[in-house]
This record gives sequence, C-alpha cells and structure tokens, in this order.
Amino acid sequence: MKLSLFSDYSLRVLMYAALKDGLFQLDDAAAAYGVSRNHVAQVIHHLAKLGYLRTQRGRGGGVRLAVLPAEVRLGKLVRETEDQPVFVECFNPVTNTCPVIGACRLKSVLAGALNEFYASLDRYTLRDLITGPQQSRLGRTLLVSKSQNF
Amino acid sequence: MKLSLFSDYSLRVLMYAALKDGLFQLDDAAAAYGVSRNHVAQVIHHLAKLGYLRTQRGRGGGVRLAVLPAEVRLGKLVRETEDQPVFVECFNPVTNTCPVIGACRLKSVLAGALNEFYASLDRYTLRDLITGPQQSRLGRTLLVSKSQNF
Repeated sequence: MKLSLFSDYSLRVLMYAALKDGLFQLDDAAAAYGVSRNHVAQVIHHLAKLGYLRTQRGRGGGVRLAVLPAEVRLGKLVRETEDQPVFVECFNPVTNTCPVIGACRLKSVLAGALNEFYASLDRYTLRDLITGPQQSRLGRTLLVSKSQNF
Repeated sequence: MKLSLFSDYSLRVLMYAALKDGLFQLDDAAAAYGVSRNHVAQVIHHLAKLGYLRTQRGRGGGVRLAVLPAEVRLGKLVRETEDQPVFVECFNPVTNTCPVIGACRLKSVLAGALNEFYASLDRYTLRDLITGPQQSRLGRTLLVSKSQNF
C-alpha cells in the first residue's frame, strides 16, 4: 500500500503554495523539492482544475493558492488526488472477478478501514502542515535555499 | 492507494482455509477464487513462513490453518503481507530525497492516518470474516461449487 506519487506531490506543491503566500513559478516549486518539472506541471494542472490553485499565464504570471490553507482538508484532498480509485478488486463490481463478493464481509471491513484513514487526514488542514514550531525552518528550506527567485 | 494483490490473496486464502477447517489443496483454493495458481502458491508459502498456515507434503498432504481464526487480527496480518513497506517517500530516510523532511509535519500526519487504517482492521479477526448471517452462502460458494474435491 502506497500513497500515489501524484498525491504526494499534490500535498507538497500545496504546502509550497501556502508557504509562498503569493505567485510562484512552477520551476521554483520543482527545484525546491528537487523533483521532475513535468510531474509538478501535471500536479499543478490537476490542482487548478480542482480549484485549489489558480494559474496566471503570460508575463508576470505564475501559480498561486486559490483557497485558504485552513480550508483544505487533507482527507478530502487525497481522495481527489489518488489515482487508484479501486482499493481492492471487489470495490469495483464491474471488473470484480471474486465469486464470493455478495457473501463476503471483507469488502466492508476494508472500506471501513479506508474511511478511518481519510477521516484521520481530515482532522488536519493544509494550514496545520505549514504552521507550528518548525514553520520558519520549513519556509527557509523550501523558499530560500533552492528557489531561483531568491 | 491500493491494497497489494498479495494482501488481497492472503486474506482470501486464509478465509478459504478457515472455512475449510481442515486440509485443503492449493489447486482447489485457486479454483475457488478463479485466480492464478502461481500467485496462490506464493501466498501460501509466505503465510506458512509467517505461521498462519501449515503445509504437509506427500500423499494425503495439503495445507491447513495453523492458528485459530479468532487469533488472526486483520491489521497485523495486512501489515505483514503488504509488499510496499514505504507508504510515501519520506517514510524511508535512506532513500528519501525531499529536502524538508526534518521540518515537515506531513510524514507524521500520514503515519497517523495509516495507523488508523490498521487499527480499524485490527478490530476484526479472520473469524469475523467467516461468521455471521452469510457464512453458509460464503461456504457454499467457496467450498462446493468450484472445488474439485466435492
């Protein structure tokens, strides 16, 4: 079981956007984490479609957060960014091949556990990820040392 | 996020073993679920190493459950069968490349959610999966219709 790279990068890009608290460049976000520019571009495109980011083209353009960090519930976000919609085969009745699907408790037990996972994440917002005693160190690492704008 | 096929099959094979309540053949378990014999063989080998199953070679041999169904906590089992030990990159400090690992709350938030997932599964045992109002239907589907022994 592994969080998708897409969710991982989505969380990281939103943290960057929230710390930046203003326009930023795709290249700077990718450089800050030392990850692929193409992956970050895909993530930004998707997060903009979901309404978390706003992109502004042309000279003086860039990307910015489109919501307040305190409004971004992490469970809701990860549900939206996970690219594996089917946690286990029997979650999709169309493609399921297990013959006991109608008489088996496993599906509901796993669905309950997955709900607990997301409910736990929903107790936190993006704001929780960028505040606290380590905020200044986080900001220094992400916004200062790697960014080409500073 | 997806449960590994290995965990999925492990849960299913143990359900089969618990319903059978005695020796069974690898081929019958694979046929009951309509899944690959090779995958089931790997799962049985691993579950035997973990102490959940006992295999008996030779004539009259087969596989049987080595523990009581009520003793198999599903969270503990799935922790042991998941083949992706690293839920997200920063969970492994050796391979991690994210520069903010020391100042970031994301890792602990995700670890907490993952713990909730396993804690939820730990509220159930293998026994819970094979008892209840649908037990007879589950047993009929798995042990009678597809098995070559009946």
